[in-house]
Amino acid sequence: MNPLYAQLGTTIFEAMSARARETGAINLGQGFADGRGPEAVLEAAARAVVDKSNQYPPMIGLPELRGAVADHYARHQGLNLAAEEVVVTSGATEALAAAIFACVSPGDEVICFQPLYDAYVPLIRQAGGVPKFVRLSPPEWKIDKAALEAAVSSKTRVLILNNPLNPAATMCSADELAMLADFCVSHDLITICDEVWEHVTFDGARHLPLIGFPGMRERTVKIGSAGKIFALTGFKVGWMCAAPAIARVLSKAHQFLTFTTPPNLQWAVAEGLATQDAWLQEARHRFQAGRDRLRTGLEGAGFAVLPSAATYFLSVDLTASGIALDDVSFANKLIDEAGVASIPVSAFYAEDAVTNVLRFCFVKDDATLDAAIARIAEAR
Amino acid sequence: MNPLYAQLGTTIFEAMSARARETGAINLGQGFADGRGPEAVLEAAARAVVDKSNQYPPMIGLPELRGAVADHYARHQGLNLAAEEVVVTSGATEALAAAIFACVSPGDEVICFQPLYDAYVPLIRQAGGVPKFVRLSPPEWKIDKAALEAAVSSKTRVLILNNPLNPAATMCSADELAMLADFCVSHDLITICDEVWEHVTFDGARHLPLIGFPGMRERTVKIGSAGKIFALTGFKVGWMCAAPAIARVLSKAHQFLTFTTPPNLQWAVAEGLATQDAWLQEARHRFQAGRDRLRTGLEGAGFAVLPSAATYFLSVDLTASGIALDDVSFANKLIDEAGVASIPVSAFYAEDAVTNVLRFCFVKDDATLDAAIARIAEAR
Ligand SMILES: CSCCC(=O)C(=O)O
Ligand SMILES: CSCCC(=O)C(=O)O
Repeated sequence: MNPLYAQLGTTIFEAMSARARETGAINLGQGFADGRGPEAVLEAAARAVVDKSNQYPPMIGLPELRGAVADHYARHQGLNLAAEEVVVTSGATEALAAAIFACVSPGDEVICFQPLYDAYVPLIRQAGGVPKFVRLSPPEWKIDKAALEAAVSSKTRVLILNNPLNPAATMCSADELAMLADFCVSHDLITICDEVWEHVTFDGARHLPLIGFPGMRERTVKIGSAGKIFALTGFKVGWMCAAPAIARVLSKAHQFLTFTTPPNLQWAVAEGLATQDAWLQEARHRFQAGRDRLRTGLEGAGFAVLPSAATYFLSVDLTASGIALDDVSFANKLIDEAGVASIPVSAFYAEDAVTNVLRFCFVKDDATLDAAIARIAEAR
Repeated sequence: MNPLYAQLGTTIFEAMSARARETGAINLGQGFADGRGPEAVLEAAARAVVDKSNQYPPMIGLPELRGAVADHYARHQGLNLAAEEVVVTSGATEALAAAIFACVSPGDEVICFQPLYDAYVPLIRQAGGVPKFVRLSPPEWKIDKAALEAAVSSKTRVLILNNPLNPAATMCSADELAMLADFCVSHDLITICDEVWEHVTFDGARHLPLIGFPGMRERTVKIGSAGKIFALTGFKVGWMCAAPAIARVLSKAHQFLTFTTPPNLQWAVAEGLATQDAWLQEARHRFQAGRDRLRTGLEGAGFAVLPSAATYFLSVDLTASGIALDDVSFANKLIDEAGVASIPVSAFYAEDAVTNVLRFCFVKDDATLDAAIARIAEAR
């Protein structure tokens, strides 16, 4: 067997969810909402599976969905993407795999920021690439220009940016993005932008897509996720947007990973992108209220809570909270003794991990959050 | 960009379907049925998307579906698989990608038979493996023991078998499978069995799974497809079955390709596998009638039609039909002049192609088949 996979553990998200399923713990680990998502999207999916074709749709996606993605980004982010520049995938994980396989050749160096989603490194390695890490740390998680310059070499071909950043719950500022764009242009890098959290932003702040910055239009792969946009993480409909010369190669990687994505879910997402702006706005407020509720509760229990500007998550600084255990030990204590699943942020580091930060998902109903807060307060 | 993907063409199945969509040609190219599939499965999918969770299901699949796959194979093929030995994937293409990535390490040699599904070779190459081809040719497409022995070396780790074989429309006999099992055991190979056509068999013959042969239980990855079983190719629900030591590594490759598969479609497939045996039997008869109708029509038009024991396909031998054009030229002539899409079988060869065989899909209604036959007869 391939040692790359044989030596890999089960992803922390699945491992924690499996423990929560087995023990009945409250699951504030893996990022998913406990709501139903927009009813119109569910009903569109139900209608389409009965009324429309369930045979192979076009390999790169239904034209209606590709157009809806382009329109959505024009309306929300001022981008001018053509439908032809959108490739539909079976979720953002497949989009990441296809983008990394299309863009990384054996021996290429790939800059990525830690903390990072745990799929990036195995995918880079499977492509024969070499990850080069730029380490971010709490409480600011700021990108340092000098650290970036130290990570680049003549072999660097690709930079991967997750923005908003899971688990840090930060968003890049316009200044940071301008600096990153400048860096990518001057080193002639392709940038894979994992922007699955683009709509889950709080306090009136809006996500800025890196592809909109000078020089980035022709070198950026922008990845999005309907599962995250509509809080329907099981839908597994995502996409990659890129200029035609890149999109053509992305589609070749996609065609031999999943080939295509269920048409009924594509129809439903197309309808959702066109009609659910009000739901998105309402969801942002609801999620922000959940964030505030969890923050207040954890602060009341004596935790030092880090800011959360975006994503489904907030984190606590264990050291600053007066807890001597590291994140993995405290996560184990919480699930075993308090019946609450969380995610240790060290799982987002491939090396030199931050080990004193624990992440909680707050897109749950009030009763669930209150019960979790009470259990966590009791256990600490 | 990665030259492996940058230099790849669009898969012939998509290319032909796209041409058919653009020109309105009758599409006897890509393998999909024009029926609706079992109504109970469509209704189960519609119900589940409204009534059940649309959040992340377990990464390796719903336990109910994994159990249903195991039960289905116990009933139909006498296999004793445990639910724990089933990993659900987003279609058989993802299963092939995950199985190849999990089993093939850089430098490993992989034996595969030509004709082959066009995903195999790019996936083997992306894994750093080296494909070694055993060439089969019409009209028998028989596997030759001496050719197999000539292809194996001390570096061979994996053999990929597609059985029933697309596009040859043949099924391995018990003798051939016993010989293959003996070969895999004696060379200590893992075998990836792409058995997506296992239920689409004709004239009362039944598919025999290689995993059931002596010595194969611990070294075989058996791949199946709900899309092919229920003639719902857009469902994109597939699976890999293997002994625990292999399944564990398969799941690691799967977790970073798509992570998981839409739960509403998993529920529907679980219900279908448990309840739709009568539909499967009826579909086999319907598809066999389509095969016979197309064969009779093409023979009436002077074509030499090769036997079809399984799959959605039959092929014509152009040379024996008195046609001097090669398969690609004749396929182009048919789509351009007659408005009928087909698949040139040379697309299933990575080298030393058979160039005088053209494949047609016959799982269409009678009127479509009759119209296609009339157009093809006129054009020849
Ligand atoms: C595919 S599971 C990961 C879900 C997620 O985005 C998270 O919990 O961080
Ligand atoms: C994923 S498209 C391939 C469909 C098919 O199995 C065929 O037409 O051979």
